[in-house]
Amino acid sequence: MINLAAGQCVACRGGEPSLTDAEIEDLQFHVIGWQVKEVDGVKRLERVFKLKKFVGAMEFTNKIAVIAEEQGHHPLIITEWGRVTVQWWTHVIKGLHKNDFIMAAKTDELLG
Amino acid sequence: MINLAAGQCVACRGGEPSLTDAEIEDLQFHVIGWQVKEVDGVKRLERVFKLKKFVGAMEFTNKIAVIAEEQGHHPLIITEWGRVTVQWWTHVIKGLHKNDFIMAAKTDELLG
Repeated sequence: MINLAAGQCVACRGGEPSLTDAEIEDLQFHVIGWQVKEVDGVKRLERVFKLKKFVGAMEFTNKIAVIAEEQGHHPLIITEWGRVTVQWWTHVIKGLHKNDFIMAAKTDELLG
Repeated sequence: MINLAAGQCVACRGGEPSLTDAEIEDLQFHVIGWQVKEVDGVKRLERVFKLKKFVGAMEFTNKIAVIAEEQGHHPLIITEWGRVTVQWWTHVIKGLHKNDFIMAAKTDELLG
């Protein structure tokens, strides 16, 4: 089991290929609970977290924002009563990068 | 022009009817920029706001969370780089209530 959560995002400037399906499958094994979802032909990693009321959802959203700024990699976050949905993908390569799996693992760690 | 932003949400316990299409049309005139969007047969008020980077989007999201707690009425917020999408609707009546238009107007005021 590799420790993705301890990883650091590397700069991704485009031109790099997105992960292949086989690479995605390998990495997904390390972030149980995250699903690959395709939106407009672009694969995203998505997980839904249950939180306490709206306040708990906002607290979690803010924690995610902190790691996003630290790593210079930003998700889409849907915040609602009792629930936060997080999506990580890499816009510049229109797909999934190892960075997204690192961020997914870091997101899981925030739950403590 | 009625001043929706100065309104206060009233407790909505279900059993009340949702707004009719005519009532929605009348109120929508007072919150220009908000669209009615139907999700799973439930009407929601939605507006997309452009913000500065992810940080600006998070700041706006947190401001919305404050008015949501104040009024005891909570939205769905999609926060991403440079953009916040806000949806207001009333779960308990599975539709739109005047409260949602009040919250939409209050959301607009946050932009200052």
